[in-house]
Amino acid sequence: MLLGDLCTVWADRLIGTSGLPAAVLLGARREYDEMRIEAVAGQYLDILHGADGAAGVGAAVTVARFKSASYTVQRPLQFGAALSGAVAPDVVAGYDRFGGAVGEAFQLRDDLLGVYGETAVTGKPVGADLRQGKRTVLAELAFSLAAPAQHRRLDRVFGDPDASDAAVTDAAAAITESGARAEAEAMISARVSTGLAALAAAPIDPVARDRLGALALASVQRLA
Amino acid sequence: MLLGDLCTVWADRLIGTSGLPAAVLLGARREYDEMRIEAVAGQYLDILHGADGAAGVGAAVTVARFKSASYTVQRPLQFGAALSGAVAPDVVAGYDRFGGAVGEAFQLRDDLLGVYGETAVTGKPVGADLRQGKRTVLAELAFSLAAPAQHRRLDRVFGDPDASDAAVTDAAAAITESGARAEAEAMISARVSTGLAALAAAPIDPVARDRLGALALASVQRLA
Repeated sequence: MLLGDLCTVWADRLIGTSGLPAAVLLGARREYDEMRIEAVAGQYLDILHGADGAAGVGAAVTVARFKSASYTVQRPLQFGAALSGAVAPDVVAGYDRFGGAVGEAFQLRDDLLGVYGETAVTGKPVGADLRQGKRTVLAELAFSLAAPAQHRRLDRVFGDPDASDAAVTDAAAAITESGARAEAEAMISARVSTGLAALAAAPIDPVARDRLGALALASVQRLA
Repeated sequence: MLLGDLCTVWADRLIGTSGLPAAVLLGARREYDEMRIEAVAGQYLDILHGADGAAGVGAAVTVARFKSASYTVQRPLQFGAALSGAVAPDVVAGYDRFGGAVGEAFQLRDDLLGVYGETAVTGKPVGADLRQGKRTVLAELAFSLAAPAQHRRLDRVFGDPDASDAAVTDAAAAITESGARAEAEAMISARVSTGLAALAAAPIDPVARDRLGALALASVQRLA
């Protein structure tokens, strides 16, 4: 806990001593502070829903938005825009829509990799989300879509740290059969489309637009 | 934990949106960041010494300096100086010496009130520090000065949450008899003298000097 507090302060100090003009730094700090508030809110909701039990797909998407989309894509873009010191409001608004959509897609891909990825490739222990009973969007989709027999196969491993690899593989198959995997892929595609459309509609420098588009695709197609 | 994180960010946001000039705010933030780093360091050392057992008087004074003096008096003065935007370096240096000395004295008074104060007056549960086994400067003085019989009377309550009021009263008497109480009072007096001398030596506005001097005396004589 203390190390976390210390890192928080050190990060503030790094920003403060970066040598950028004071007014620019203060503008960027506003985005930074909002990002941190959203991350805390997302973490709180995540814990709350974990205790509540099934809170539903909408609640899981809200957690993904606050806890992941905000700090991975959305706010860093706005932070960068603020640091540059002179970005037009409609560019900032474009970044906001793009970042929110791509950030959520990024987390949805992460959910899928946690169930269907290969640990050797992703570095993420496959099945850990299921064994921990993590209420990801994918898990909430599965719980809402699964037929009773599929639901039982998922229940056998969900939240059980000692579930066997075979049971985890079977639960992953049940999630696929429920239609949740396909639905998660559709949600990713929809968000990438929304994000790319927001990029296209905003008066963003063409080189930056191309690079952001490529980053968006890379982040949601990574290692799939 | 999350509420603490949130309050940390809200405090940052309050500073950032206070409306003061950006360059002034960044200067004040440097003091604020140092204060927070010192508070974390002090808390870490406090926990470490609590686990270690007797770390000695010097270690307890270091904890008091980082954990209390810094955020109660020393850094707030420097924070204020930075906010005013134009304070001479020798005034800042005077505040530094004054604040460090008076801040330590303030914590030493707090230690004494925790053992000899009246809860109805201080709002601080008397004996709680002893029952918690808190390694205050006063406790370290007592452990280093106590004769074996006094040491045993202190050991009977130190770190025992269920110690009786009578045992706590007896341990407080043992601390007095060991000479630790008088030594703590002498340390307070020495620090107040150092602080007032630092005030006198620095080119501080006379009205401010008088008020700071009065505050120093009030903070170490409070409710004694």
